[in-house]
Amino acid sequence: MTAATTDEGSSSNLVCVFCGSGDGNDPAYAEAAQALGRELVQAGYGLVYGGGDSGLMGRVARATQASGGRVVGIMPRALTTIEGCGVEIGEMVMVDSMHERKSLMNDHAAAFVALPGGFGTLEELLEITTWAQLAIHNKPVVVVNTNGYYSALKAMIDGAANAGFIKAQCQKSIVFCDTPADAVAAIKAFKPRAPRYDIEWAAKTNA
Amino acid sequence: MTAATTDEGSSSNLVCVFCGSGDGNDPAYAEAAQALGRELVQAGYGLVYGGGDSGLMGRVARATQASGGRVVGIMPRALTTIEGCGVEIGEMVMVDSMHERKSLMNDHAAAFVALPGGFGTLEELLEITTWAQLAIHNKPVVVVNTNGYYSALKAMIDGAANAGFIKAQCQKSIVFCDTPADAVAAIKAFKPRAPRYDIEWAAKTNA
Ligand SMILES: [Mg+2]
Repeated sequence: MTAATTDEGSSSNLVCVFCGSGDGNDPAYAEAAQALGRELVQAGYGLVYGGGDSGLMGRVARATQASGGRVVGIMPRALTTIEGCGVEIGEMVMVDSMHERKSLMNDHAAAFVALPGGFGTLEELLEITTWAQLAIHNKPVVVVNTNGYYSALKAMIDGAANAGFIKAQCQKSIVFCDTPADAVAAIKAFKPRAPRYDIEWAAKTNA
Repeated sequence: MTAATTDEGSSSNLVCVFCGSGDGNDPAYAEAAQALGRELVQAGYGLVYGGGDSGLMGRVARATQASGGRVVGIMPRALTTIEGCGVEIGEMVMVDSMHERKSLMNDHAAAFVALPGGFGTLEELLEITTWAQLAIHNKPVVVVNTNGYYSALKAMIDGAANAGFIKAQCQKSIVFCDTPADAVAAIKAFKPRAPRYDIEWAAKTNA
């Protein structure tokens, strides 16, 4: 779409971060967002994210930039007043829809990391996990489980696997980590899996 | 897009059901899918769904059709060998992408109900909940929590609200019900909420 990325993301050194446009009420969330920005740059990565300047979104972007890393934000025009893009951090790409945002983030990313967030963050995390299952990408999907924020999601996934709705080889599609440093290590350690399905998509970026 | 539906879904009598393409290993899931099809028709609704003939997808569609209800299936061509459309149940609409499927299901639906399923079902449920929050639709979103299948998701959402990432007025965006009959009653009882945000989308169906 832009830049020299591939479907596999192997030539990208940007990590896509999904997170809240608020800070939440535990200071550990803001600390995790800032630490993730620093850890990404130390490991040689930049950031692609939703483009907001508020909450954890702004924190991870500013920490990445302050550490010397590249930042690419992808913002639907309609959301600029809600997620905030009063201050542009790094390169900003404006798009028309939520779907175009997610598709472009996938195009740009070598890996995906979720910090705490609300419905939108959960949806982005689960969509990108579904895309891994459907062979739309084959990249690591990692959660920073700060103070157990995502432990109930892990319980939901393990329950779905035990109930027979998620196959054993997909149960670990999301790697749950305790800290940002562990999350970056999980990205580095990721070995692409053989796809569960052999699916021919008409246009991979149009998932 | 097709038919005489509106963004509010008020003129549609189709309910969109998200669920697994497998049956899971508790017979209660299959029973819930079949009961939901019957209850929808008894309440005057038809079904719009992902178009598969396997697992819970096939069960809810066949039960709706056997009860005399309209069935519309929306299937991405690339998934026909995976979710099964060897037997077409009702009217089948073929599309090119996962996104086009979800957008068309939203166009057709008056309400959304999730039965048990895996990553794809969770993603569909959370995306449609995010769309409610973003004022892309204003329709009920209901979960059939058969034998507590979705209780961990409810815990995740309540935890996210307690942590400050989901606003109080959005915490109940998903109505959790114990049975298909309760789910249909929740659809009937739904009162549209004032939107959280006033957002102008370039094209609502392009979310
Ligand atoms: Mg989605």
